[in-house]
Amino acid sequence: MTETDFKVTPIGFVNRKDDGIYLELFQEYRPALQQLEHFSHMHVLWCSDKHDNIKSKKSIQCTPPYGENPPVTGVFATRAEYRPNPIGLTIVEILKINHEKGLIKIKNIDAFDTTPILDLKAYFPVCDRVKEAKIPKWISGWPDWFPDDGFGL
Amino acid sequence: MTETDFKVTPIGFVNRKDDGIYLELFQEYRPALQQLEHFSHMHVLWCSDKHDNIKSKKSIQCTPPYGENPPVTGVFATRAEYRPNPIGLTIVEILKINHEKGLIKIKNIDAFDTTPILDLKAYFPVCDRVKEAKIPKWISGWPDWFPDDGFGL
Repeated sequence: MTETDFKVTPIGFVNRKDDGIYLELFQEYRPALQQLEHFSHMHVLWCSDKHDNIKSKKSIQCTPPYGENPPVTGVFATRAEYRPNPIGLTIVEILKINHEKGLIKIKNIDAFDTTPILDLKAYFPVCDRVKEAKIPKWISGWPDWFPDDGFGL
Repeated sequence: MTETDFKVTPIGFVNRKDDGIYLELFQEYRPALQQLEHFSHMHVLWCSDKHDNIKSKKSIQCTPPYGENPPVTGVFATRAEYRPNPIGLTIVEILKINHEKGLIKIKNIDAFDTTPILDLKAYFPVCDRVKEAKIPKWISGWPDWFPDDGFGL
């Protein structure tokens, strides 16, 4: 039940190029990509560095800008980028991996160019796909599945 | 494309009590739980504090202890707790929330007692449920869905 802080280190960054969106990994982390090309999707943990400040970290309730008559909502019941630890979590579709250059071409992500990446985790249906997931009434009209185009900015 | 480290602060910890498993939040973060009781599941980001050391952070490939003839695999293609940033990600089923005491009773989690928690994120099918997710041949026999009992130790 430690309250000690931890240090996290970027493993790479979002690189929005003319021909698509890439996650670019620093050299020392590239061997950790081995076999990832056999998965279609992964979770990206990224640092919402624009919200790495006291004001954003203290913004722990909001009225979401979506849904029907959304109530005042705690940030743990949202995916807002401002939260006590500004770590974003987005599932992305993997298009191509260049292991040597540490470049992963992805279909989409809702993170800005140069956003620091903290971790990648392959998407395992057995861990990540919940059959009966209940959501609140005020967003009950939302789709049941991750969209083909993913989530972008 | 910063390589600057970030600081993350535990918001609470895993509390394994006689009557079940709880996530216990420190007082200042409890208002962030508002409305979370309307979701059945959430992601828990936790710090694998036993692996917050140089040796574990440099262990970036492994031969997974599961599947059929697993190849040498980068940790980003696994859910191993040892990785460059030792952040665990587990989906849990929410059983009950006591907002005043900051206690969330959950069905299961694969994190030890007293494990620091970094973030909670409600599970939104539109963000998190991928219909066609491909996985490697060597784990192709695995279930397609998150199990009713969740993931425990």
